[in-house]
Amino acid sequence: MHALVERLYPLCRSITGDGVRRTLEIVGESLPLEVHEVPTGTEVLDWTVPKEWNLRDAYVKDPSGRKVIDFTESSLHVVGYSTPVSATLTLDELRPHLHTLPEQPDLIPYRTSYYAETWGFCLRHETLAALPPGPYEVVIDSTLADGHLTYAEHVVPGESADEVLVSCHVCHPSLANDNLAGVAVAVELALRLAERRPRHTYRFVFAPGTIGAITWLAFNRDRVGRIGAGLVLACAGDRGSLTYKRSRRGNAEIDRVMEHVLRASGRPHTVVDFSPYGYDERQYCSPGFDLGVGSLTRTPYGAYPEYHTSADNPGFVSPEAMTETLETLWEAVDVLERDRRYLNLSPYGEPQLGRRGLYGSLGGRSDTKRDQMAMLWVLNLSDGDHSLLDIAERSALPFPLVADAALALQSAGLLKE
Amino acid sequence: MHALVERLYPLCRSITGDGVRRTLEIVGESLPLEVHEVPTGTEVLDWTVPKEWNLRDAYVKDPSGRKVIDFTESSLHVVGYSTPVSATLTLDELRPHLHTLPEQPDLIPYRTSYYAETWGFCLRHETLAALPPGPYEVVIDSTLADGHLTYAEHVVPGESADEVLVSCHVCHPSLANDNLAGVAVAVELALRLAERRPRHTYRFVFAPGTIGAITWLAFNRDRVGRIGAGLVLACAGDRGSLTYKRSRRGNAEIDRVMEHVLRASGRPHTVVDFSPYGYDERQYCSPGFDLGVGSLTRTPYGAYPEYHTSADNPGFVSPEAMTETLETLWEAVDVLERDRRYLNLSPYGEPQLGRRGLYGSLGGRSDTKRDQMAMLWVLNLSDGDHSLLDIAERSALPFPLVADAALALQSAGLLKE
Amino acid sequence: MHALVERLYPLCRSITGDGVRRTLEIVGESLPLEVHEVPTGTEVLDWTVPKEWNLRDAYVKDPSGRKVIDFTESSLHVVGYSTPVSATLTLDELRPHLHTLPEQPDLIPYRTSYYAETWGFCLRHETLAALPPGPYEVVIDSTLADGHLTYAEHVVPGESADEVLVSCHVCHPSLANDNLAGVAVAVELALRLAERRPRHTYRFVFAPGTIGAITWLAFNRDRVGRIGAGLVLACAGDRGSLTYKRSRRGNAEIDRVMEHVLRASGRPHTVVDFSPYGYDERQYCSPGFDLGVGSLTRTPYGAYPEYHTSADNPGFVSPEAMTETLETLWEAVDVLERDRRYLNLSPYGEPQLGRRGLYGSLGGRSDTKRDQMAMLWVLNLSDGDHSLLDIAERSALPFPLVADAALALQSAGLLKE
Repeated sequence: MHALVERLYPLCRSITGDGVRRTLEIVGESLPLEVHEVPTGTEVLDWTVPKEWNLRDAYVKDPSGRKVIDFTESSLHVVGYSTPVSATLTLDELRPHLHTLPEQPDLIPYRTSYYAETWGFCLRHETLAALPPGPYEVVIDSTLADGHLTYAEHVVPGESADEVLVSCHVCHPSLANDNLAGVAVAVELALRLAERRPRHTYRFVFAPGTIGAITWLAFNRDRVGRIGAGLVLACAGDRGSLTYKRSRRGNAEIDRVMEHVLRASGRPHTVVDFSPYGYDERQYCSPGFDLGVGSLTRTPYGAYPEYHTSADNPGFVSPEAMTETLETLWEAVDVLERDRRYLNLSPYGEPQLGRRGLYGSLGGRSDTKRDQMAMLWVLNLSDGDHSLLDIAERSALPFPLVADAALALQSAGLLKE
Repeated sequence: MHALVERLYPLCRSITGDGVRRTLEIVGESLPLEVHEVPTGTEVLDWTVPKEWNLRDAYVKDPSGRKVIDFTESSLHVVGYSTPVSATLTLDELRPHLHTLPEQPDLIPYRTSYYAETWGFCLRHETLAALPPGPYEVVIDSTLADGHLTYAEHVVPGESADEVLVSCHVCHPSLANDNLAGVAVAVELALRLAERRPRHTYRFVFAPGTIGAITWLAFNRDRVGRIGAGLVLACAGDRGSLTYKRSRRGNAEIDRVMEHVLRASGRPHTVVDFSPYGYDERQYCSPGFDLGVGSLTRTPYGAYPEYHTSADNPGFVSPEAMTETLETLWEAVDVLERDRRYLNLSPYGEPQLGRRGLYGSLGGRSDTKRDQMAMLWVLNLSDGDHSLLDIAERSALPFPLVADAALALQSAGLLKE
Repeated sequence: MHALVERLYPLCRSITGDGVRRTLEIVGESLPLEVHEVPTGTEVLDWTVPKEWNLRDAYVKDPSGRKVIDFTESSLHVVGYSTPVSATLTLDELRPHLHTLPEQPDLIPYRTSYYAETWGFCLRHETLAALPPGPYEVVIDSTLADGHLTYAEHVVPGESADEVLVSCHVCHPSLANDNLAGVAVAVELALRLAERRPRHTYRFVFAPGTIGAITWLAFNRDRVGRIGAGLVLACAGDRGSLTYKRSRRGNAEIDRVMEHVLRASGRPHTVVDFSPYGYDERQYCSPGFDLGVGSLTRTPYGAYPEYHTSADNPGFVSPEAMTETLETLWEAVDVLERDRRYLNLSPYGEPQLGRRGLYGSLGGRSDTKRDQMAMLWVLNLSDGDHSLLDIAERSALPFPLVADAALALQSAGLLKE
């Protein structure tokens, strides 16, 4: 996963343009992707697909001809969606177009201006402080013209048409945790799912933030009813602990699944309520859709000092952290796949487990007592009202133990689906 | 407000009589009042309007002719509803009629005997301790006879016939916090409301405790269905922090409004559950009526040492505390007036706020980020199920910010009522 | 109660056989019992009544003829349901049949093997450690043959056919707290109830654990609908604090009653959620029955070191603890008997209590203020939706005070049932 982050990192992504296309090509080497190109001007919900932006080169040369700002060093140096410029300007004339972080003087900030036409450069505050008065040769060789918005989907088909959505934004330029780590973890999750032949269908959406999710929703209004659960995946690789942000509903299936998995895992984590800010859960959870979609991150957006700066580089992303994020997702998938309601076929009194070899059947394992408790709980609560996840929560037993107990009981003819 | 407390303080009020009439005359100088006179013997719910009590003079003279107890010094000196007396008694004969506070020897207690005919004096325990054996000339020049019970109403008409009730008891003699401060704050609130031209109709009831509220309820049985919210206002001026006591229902509109306002205010405060004791919320919340009426006090009845003693004098009441009580009420009025449910007209995805100038429209203020969050919350939750108060509570944003955001969105055509 | 524990203690009980019969005969000296004999092979729910087991003698003699294990010393020495043995064995041959507690070397464990035919002895680990190689004369003079399962019922008839169930297991041999203390407390409770002439009918079931409860349920499937509340009573005499385990429903009447009684008592106690393990609440709360049956113990099963060892002897059981358990049960009975919904006949405003002498009627008691509060609470909440227990819980007043207030109000014509 970390290699994919490193490979994608240098590309100059934005909400449209060749950086996104190239990113999706590279992802497509691992996963077959259905790539969609939506023309500029297309109306999508309350929005309109904007012009496509591409950037060939950009720099600021000082009087000696030295590039004091050079886009090839970092894609963050240019304000996203900057209009073309070719001019000679004094520092005073240039300064309103320069963005720095005075409190983090050695970092380049990330800035965009999608919907107000302007141009600008982002640079280290310490670089700015050392600039002489000029004049400077200022070049942004960009195009902002009719074109397309690009997004992609990958589907892992399941037995059922019910869908689980995993959505990642792919519009940020050279930022590793936000959101190349999310993309890399999603790719790995999709590969694992393909081996599992799942019950649910899993749909991965790789799209620019906001306008991309809105475009996807606009093109899939009739299909969103199939989405039973979903996750927006972002900031999946920093060294902070996991954070699950609930869906707008607060008690959707994904909310219960993620909270159970995180609690049972023993991993440090935080669960926070929905708020209409953050990543594309804002769109999926808008009141007209109100999907059961939460968000999984490690440290949330804006809550780490490297956020939206050049310090969010591949070194900020830890392979171990991405693996932990992936394992957590896999545990959630396991619950989504295995959760169901059973009916105890012998509900009057306890059935005699010993006669059916069910005490012995699990006797060799060290957690026999917990296995037996799991069987007793499944029998006691399989009344048609309780799912296996309900049982795991009420019994405070891990879901897999409960699900295994249900399988053993089903094999013995004591449960039916 | 404090001047009104001082002016009303010396009057000898009781549940009937000229003290109440004079009190209402003085209140009537600020607010037009509709004064009701209900004859003795009138049946009101389970009760009967009692005889009217008036007191012209009362004293106890020692053998030297000095008044050791003198009603003109404090109206507390006479037990409320004392029958007439004119007798010469030894201290031993007098003593069963004398009430003191041995643990607060320098204070005069407040005592009444509305429904058992007797007479008595209240005095400082230290005065009692110094009394020689007598004999004493004992005079209570009172009348207890058929007459009327007096109460008054003031109505601030609103656009709607829905009513908000504010109820104050006016039966306590020279006690300042309990309840002249409540009366004074209610008067000021009514004056402010008149300037606002409110949506709801506000009804102020100034009535004797218990029998007055019962009388009002008896005469307004058909009208109480209009009361959507209400407050019993008492002990509004002491220096303790605010206390809100919930209605019997516990989650009535007034309960949610007061709890939100108090929490958002940052003022120290306490919220307590309903109990069938205290002030006239007992009557408004009796099970046959079960009105959404709570009670706002500062320190609750009985919980301050000055309660029902001569130490509850105008000096015990602080202008700042009355102002704070008034401001809290005004904030509650603001919620009652502005709370409503809107419908997001663009509920699929977020509407593009930038295009409508809604990011900029509030950009000059220092809390721009909170304004934007308020707009996002209002859009996200305006699904017909959530009121602005619901949104303020879920977002933990102050109600006025949420209501202002709703107005801005409504102006932009994104919300409708 | 302690004398009964001591008398029953030496008997060799099991899930069938003469030990249970003799136990029930002794209980029957205090209470008339209906004894049921259910033949081996009878199908009961998912189970089958097993063969009857009886034990005449059992010992292990060392080469010198000394009995190193002697059943007459303790009924725990023989594994319950041991098949007959008469053999000469070396220590190595014998050892697989010997059960000890290495961590409690001076205690004899309690072991059974109801459904797998085998034999064995239980002994102190320190005894085992001192045994020479043998050979040993090994004798278990038992019979395992068609016979009966024995259980008994005692009914205290009430005005209503609604039943309260009290269930005790009677299958453990020489173990005092588990469950002779439970049996002794149940006997005393039944005697007290007979004097009370209760509203509900109280049914006491004395049956072997698991198979006995299952048998009773099988024979009473049509009757269980009458059981409105119930308790499994066990471990009623150790010196630990009381533990109430909720029914599967969690908010059944018995749950609310027991929690109120324990909280109001001021006694140290613990309330735990239902789990499908423990005593016969497992059967009564199986999903097909789902009865409102909780469990009252002192220290729960398995949570004290004496559990299922020879240290659970009559000295482990305290008369004071049994009395406290009984008093707690009696307080619960009082709530079950007296709880009901009243209707306030004067629900508009407070009725005038003084006129009816209701302030005075209780005036002589030291807790007059609490009595008055109880009356006000009963009046305020007697709207048809709240029972006296609801009122006691909401008011945080003890149930008897609330029930007495309701009686006084009913006598005054202010309440009706």
